[in-house]
Amino acid sequence: MIEIIFLGTGASVPSRSRMLPCIVLRRKDELIVFDCGEGAQYRFLQSGLGVNKKMVILISHMHGDHVFGLPGLITTMSFLGRTKPLTIIGPPGIKKFLNCVLKTIPHHIRYDISVYEKEPGVVYEADEYIIEAYETEHSVTNYAYVFKEKERPGKFHPDKAMKLGVPKGPLWKKLQMGFPVVLEDGRIIRPEDVLGPPRKGIKIVYTGDTGPCEDIISACKEADVIIHEATYSSELTEKALKEGHSTTVMAAETAKRCKAKMLILTHISARYEGLEDKLLEEAKRIFENTILAYDGLKVTVK
Amino acid sequence: MIEIIFLGTGASVPSRSRMLPCIVLRRKDELIVFDCGEGAQYRFLQSGLGVNKKMVILISHMHGDHVFGLPGLITTMSFLGRTKPLTIIGPPGIKKFLNCVLKTIPHHIRYDISVYEKEPGVVYEADEYIIEAYETEHSVTNYAYVFKEKERPGKFHPDKAMKLGVPKGPLWKKLQMGFPVVLEDGRIIRPEDVLGPPRKGIKIVYTGDTGPCEDIISACKEADVIIHEATYSSELTEKALKEGHSTTVMAAETAKRCKAKMLILTHISARYEGLEDKLLEEAKRIFENTILAYDGLKVTVK
Repeated sequence: MIEIIFLGTGASVPSRSRMLPCIVLRRKDELIVFDCGEGAQYRFLQSGLGVNKKMVILISHMHGDHVFGLPGLITTMSFLGRTKPLTIIGPPGIKKFLNCVLKTIPHHIRYDISVYEKEPGVVYEADEYIIEAYETEHSVTNYAYVFKEKERPGKFHPDKAMKLGVPKGPLWKKLQMGFPVVLEDGRIIRPEDVLGPPRKGIKIVYTGDTGPCEDIISACKEADVIIHEATYSSELTEKALKEGHSTTVMAAETAKRCKAKMLILTHISARYEGLEDKLLEEAKRIFENTILAYDGLKVTVK
Repeated sequence: MIEIIFLGTGASVPSRSRMLPCIVLRRKDELIVFDCGEGAQYRFLQSGLGVNKKMVILISHMHGDHVFGLPGLITTMSFLGRTKPLTIIGPPGIKKFLNCVLKTIPHHIRYDISVYEKEPGVVYEADEYIIEAYETEHSVTNYAYVFKEKERPGKFHPDKAMKLGVPKGPLWKKLQMGFPVVLEDGRIIRPEDVLGPPRKGIKIVYTGDTGPCEDIISACKEADVIIHEATYSSELTEKALKEGHSTTVMAAETAKRCKAKMLILTHISARYEGLEDKLLEEAKRIFENTILAYDGLKVTVK
């Protein structure tokens, strides 16, 4: 189970109700944070996410509205007692930005920070999931990040194990974890004898800022959730294409084409304050299972 | 008349209700901004202050909670159409910080920004006011800023001018502006013949972060308003002194000793969320005309 928490859902400049981009995946006791716009620390504390969790922050691109909240969040977490190391990943530029801020501002960060400038491909691997970066269509290098849980062994059937004479205990556990076992009588029992089909993990894509492009289609294929930027309504299609942004309709077309299960629109231009219903309608006409994000929205994915 | 607008009144880390330090003086069509903590642009836009006013930003010291909102505010003002030049003043370090952020983050700022690292003394002079910096007691160089309107000529008495035979018109205007005039009969009329006593300008002090010290006393003498940091309640006197911060009581004692007209407490630690009444009481016992600032507070000074 993963909870997606939208801390900031605005674009370029904040509106009354939307701060700048910051979206968190909460999985077990870990936090995976996409972008860190100004105000992130404020919403982060409001949301009670906890400052000392295992955590990786992934920055989509080096525009100010996506990174100006990073120095504040990392210093505030230290102030409030963080001791666990923190990993920050981004496109080229992220290292120079953080280095120069932390060199010019006196601070007392008491935990380790590792910053990595990555090429597209697998950018982070944990025991149970990986994160891949795809380079997309924007005015500067932008990464869409694909979070993918690794495939897990299928469901264990105790009745089948009993029938095959596998005694309850350590051998069951071994089979559940996908290893074959040898019984006392010499018979070999394979995991597939007692397990159902392998279970697919959850796939969530965060696009960052992007116009429609082939890499986004590749990234989003059969995603459980696509968190897609939708800076503009379809009336501003030309502007969106020129700037490397998406409209509601472009995002919905990607979700449809990629056979995604759910689409969540974010990075909404401040000009649509109070006009969000229209944006949502545009997308829903093409892809029914669409949500329009707001600051504070939480979505659970199973 | 000057309006003081409190955009951020927290300290170190934001609380639910307080963003980080940013306080604006609105005088005629100008804005004088003290500090620029994270969230400043958000509150700035909410307050409808206008992004294209004549404007000077004064940074008290180079701790992140007082400057991390600066990059966002200056880029957002450009995005929303600012064309007027902007002056930024601060202690040593402000130039390096802004240079390195604006060099590492792609942006399109379309107006001129002048950044000055100043020594204590007069740091800014306009036609009708000056701003002075006093170095105070903190863990890094901190400037208290003293905003002082220049003395204006006294009130004009038309009856006195008539009696002295000064004809209504350009000569009246000249006298009102403080210049002597010569009448047709050769007599010289001096401004003091027709004007009341010179009118004192408004004096407002913003302390930034500081413990009690002689420079604060000098800066605050007979101020109309002291905007004083009060990070802690009096129970944490030792902590305050150790860190170069003030308690409510220290701020109130300064206001009393300096014969100020009004004290406004700001830079309130997040630990006092919901306990502000107690802080205010502590100060009021010593200096009655005290207000405890909150984000969004506006105070008019005449």
